[in-house]
Amino acid sequence: MLDDVLMKYPDEETDYRELADPLQAEIGHIQREILDLKIPVMIIIEGWDASGISNICNRLIRYLDPRGYRLYPVGRPKQAEAEMPFFWRFALVTPEEGKFAIFDRAWYSRLIVENKGNIKDIFQRKIEDIKSFEHQFSDDGGILIKIFLHISHKEQKKRFKEADSDPCRSYYLKNIDWNPKKEYPEYFSVIDEILFRTNTPKAPWEVIPSENYEYAVYRVYDTVINRLKSAISEKREGVENICYECPLLSSGYCLPEPHAPMILDRKEYKSKKKELGKRLLELQVELYKNKIPLVVLYEGWDASGKGGAITRLTRYLNPRGYRIEPIGPPDVKEKERGYLWRFYNRLPRPGRIVIFDRTWYGRVLVERVEGLCSDYDWKRAYGEITEFEHFIDEWGAVIVKFWIHISKEEQLNRFRAREADPDKKWKITPEDWRNREKWDQYEEAVCDMISLTHTPCCPWTIVSGNDKYSARIQTFEAVIAAVEKKLKSLE
Amino acid sequence: MLDDVLMKYPDEETDYRELADPLQAEIGHIQREILDLKIPVMIIIEGWDASGISNICNRLIRYLDPRGYRLYPVGRPKQAEAEMPFFWRFALVTPEEGKFAIFDRAWYSRLIVENKGNIKDIFQRKIEDIKSFEHQFSDDGGILIKIFLHISHKEQKKRFKEADSDPCRSYYLKNIDWNPKKEYPEYFSVIDEILFRTNTPKAPWEVIPSENYEYAVYRVYDTVINRLKSAISEKREGVENICYECPLLSSGYCLPEPHAPMILDRKEYKSKKKELGKRLLELQVELYKNKIPLVVLYEGWDASGKGGAITRLTRYLNPRGYRIEPIGPPDVKEKERGYLWRFYNRLPRPGRIVIFDRTWYGRVLVERVEGLCSDYDWKRAYGEITEFEHFIDEWGAVIVKFWIHISKEEQLNRFRAREADPDKKWKITPEDWRNREKWDQYEEAVCDMISLTHTPCCPWTIVSGNDKYSARIQTFEAVIAAVEKKLKSLE
Repeated sequence: MLDDVLMKYPDEETDYRELADPLQAEIGHIQREILDLKIPVMIIIEGWDASGISNICNRLIRYLDPRGYRLYPVGRPKQAEAEMPFFWRFALVTPEEGKFAIFDRAWYSRLIVENKGNIKDIFQRKIEDIKSFEHQFSDDGGILIKIFLHISHKEQKKRFKEADSDPCRSYYLKNIDWNPKKEYPEYFSVIDEILFRTNTPKAPWEVIPSENYEYAVYRVYDTVINRLKSAISEKREGVENICYECPLLSSGYCLPEPHAPMILDRKEYKSKKKELGKRLLELQVELYKNKIPLVVLYEGWDASGKGGAITRLTRYLNPRGYRIEPIGPPDVKEKERGYLWRFYNRLPRPGRIVIFDRTWYGRVLVERVEGLCSDYDWKRAYGEITEFEHFIDEWGAVIVKFWIHISKEEQLNRFRAREADPDKKWKITPEDWRNREKWDQYEEAVCDMISLTHTPCCPWTIVSGNDKYSARIQTFEAVIAAVEKKLKSLE
Repeated sequence: MLDDVLMKYPDEETDYRELADPLQAEIGHIQREILDLKIPVMIIIEGWDASGISNICNRLIRYLDPRGYRLYPVGRPKQAEAEMPFFWRFALVTPEEGKFAIFDRAWYSRLIVENKGNIKDIFQRKIEDIKSFEHQFSDDGGILIKIFLHISHKEQKKRFKEADSDPCRSYYLKNIDWNPKKEYPEYFSVIDEILFRTNTPKAPWEVIPSENYEYAVYRVYDTVINRLKSAISEKREGVENICYECPLLSSGYCLPEPHAPMILDRKEYKSKKKELGKRLLELQVELYKNKIPLVVLYEGWDASGKGGAITRLTRYLNPRGYRIEPIGPPDVKEKERGYLWRFYNRLPRPGRIVIFDRTWYGRVLVERVEGLCSDYDWKRAYGEITEFEHFIDEWGAVIVKFWIHISKEEQLNRFRAREADPDKKWKITPEDWRNREKWDQYEEAVCDMISLTHTPCCPWTIVSGNDKYSARIQTFEAVIAAVEKKLKSLE
């Protein structure tokens, strides 16, 4: 994609500054329309070093209302970013509805820099990751504009020479974490192929020759405005944004009967629990030493005992290293971003444990059954979720996913027992009874969820929950087994 | 405060676990009441090493609903925390209305550890900072519960010996950033005096003997429940939470006439601006090299030209190093925390620049005049703001505060010009006209603000704004002067 671009050089006659003027005046209006229509916009400016990325960014934001954009200069990750999954720092700053996030360099630069000397490996694994991350944003209604500023090697060398004599520019150049001077020939074909492979219909690249600054400014404005205008008219005309092939449902998977594999009396339970609890604490120290994060997901029927199982598990852990994240409906700010944003935001640091009481699977359970999102939203969520879990797995985390299963009769007994207990009465609400009436619909959703998201890296553990003691012991054992397996794989 | 506590040891006869039982059952109810009444609660557990802080925390959270609390283990700050003002990491996690923030160690431990060998200095400067930080939270209606777990030196030595043979405990002990074994005798009187000096009416210390674990648990529950119960009944009875002495207003300060100190024609203005702009870029590099943050605040009448002055200033800066923060009304999540929370959250990193278009002074301007907060809220804000700016100054930042002043007639001309311009018409709203009718009230608020917050470390610069060219040049010059002064002070 790079080869031909420098051929299309601007003619020297045209005053591109004059051409850009009306576009700069227009961008303010467009920004207000984007805000009205609640469209999130990401603009990434990539390019060769010394291609003028910063200058272009400064010119682009000059005519934008600062209330509506945020500029992210992407450099060496901070400690807290470097230890998280690669896309974490970007996922956290995806724009809210109607807002612009502008990236001065983005995940492409970081991928190349952080995988130096390992270019082949990038191709094998990372291109697909980038495409996942980008299509999730587009599928959600976001507009992603990708610009690459292109200059020739000769022009780059000339600019470095000029920069050397300018203390303001040379200071920054000395402090970046690669050696761009040597990289042009080495990286030309790599970058060319990355651009080609990630040039998707929803997130196409615009390669802009940047040897003439005013021409580049004009082209950037032109590109941004055209993409936004067509997004605005599509939204106004109600064009449906469907580009993801949803999976076939009704796989025929059936939940097993929730009978306990063992029945324990109180004494056996207590002694077993204590023994496993001790092992859990030892493993927590091992996770901490090895900087391995652990994510435990609890899903299950209402009153299946998720909360109780979590309390028992955490009793043995050091509170400095674990956190319980109860998941309810998203709050106002969370609703303004992609569905997975709040989960990126709740991942553990390395060596720490996060326990989710209900999880991202809410999308394909309660949101599906209650119609809280569109069909297209929950149908594509299976894919989004497996990709998200793949990012977490690749990062090195242990993931344990529980579905705590009880029978419909057992649930009724527990609801009644709760209502009869003055201390637990507040726990049971009319909503629980309403959910219960939709048992069959939920069961269908659960079966689809398990069959579509039971992956080799992140399998489900179905806990037979009719007997509480046994259910808790099953969860202890599954967590221990998963952590031990991971630790063994490191030996 | 430490001396006598170990004398009050529990009797061996009582079963404290039994005494704690009903309290543990009660805490859930109390938590729901606190949520209903929207009271934010901070609980900090400090104490000697090996006094059982983590165990106590784990026991305290076991009976709380995880949706309503968050536990913060406070250790060595992360890179991103260490480079910010001392209270930054704590200010960002103050609880939302109705929520609990529980600290496993807090600013007291950090202050002692981070100022090791410099204990005297702590006393001189830091005690007052701690008191400021704590009273701001209480003044805002928050409940701060401070607990110190006390054990004797002999008991501590015994516990360290035991821990040595327990791999889970000894691993953590080896990885903390001080040497607690040696510290007991050395720090006894220091800690005793810190506790004494920070034992304030709104944030008293509870020193709890912790050699008997069940007794300590009982006392912690008892302390927490009693404080919360009295907070609940005070709130229910509508007791006014007034404990801060508000300053006397009407200082007699008068705004000067907004005549330009110099009148520039367009050509002079352009050449002056370019020359100063070049200097600004040089200084941005110096700030970056020296890791000095710069905070520039723009306040001024509607249509006084804040936005225009900011655009001109940023044109010369490298966008990787500055950020514009336009300040409007707080959003839903921001309203649930203290007033200054969103400003802590927007401070620059070292070496970076943040430009506020409207600022925290909104509290004593628009919120005061429009009655958007209580009298007590805005009256105590003068003190809160000077303390906040003092934290920023102590951290090493440069702060520049502008009031851009125009005459009432000039404002009228500008409003009319905006209305006549189709591209600028959207900028002028009925609200602007309404604010204009309250000119005199705003003027009184501005005069109070300037006289009460014009401090030696953070003085105001009154910009004569009737002539736009001159106003912009004044802001350029003031920023340059402030940065140069700071750089000179480092030589």
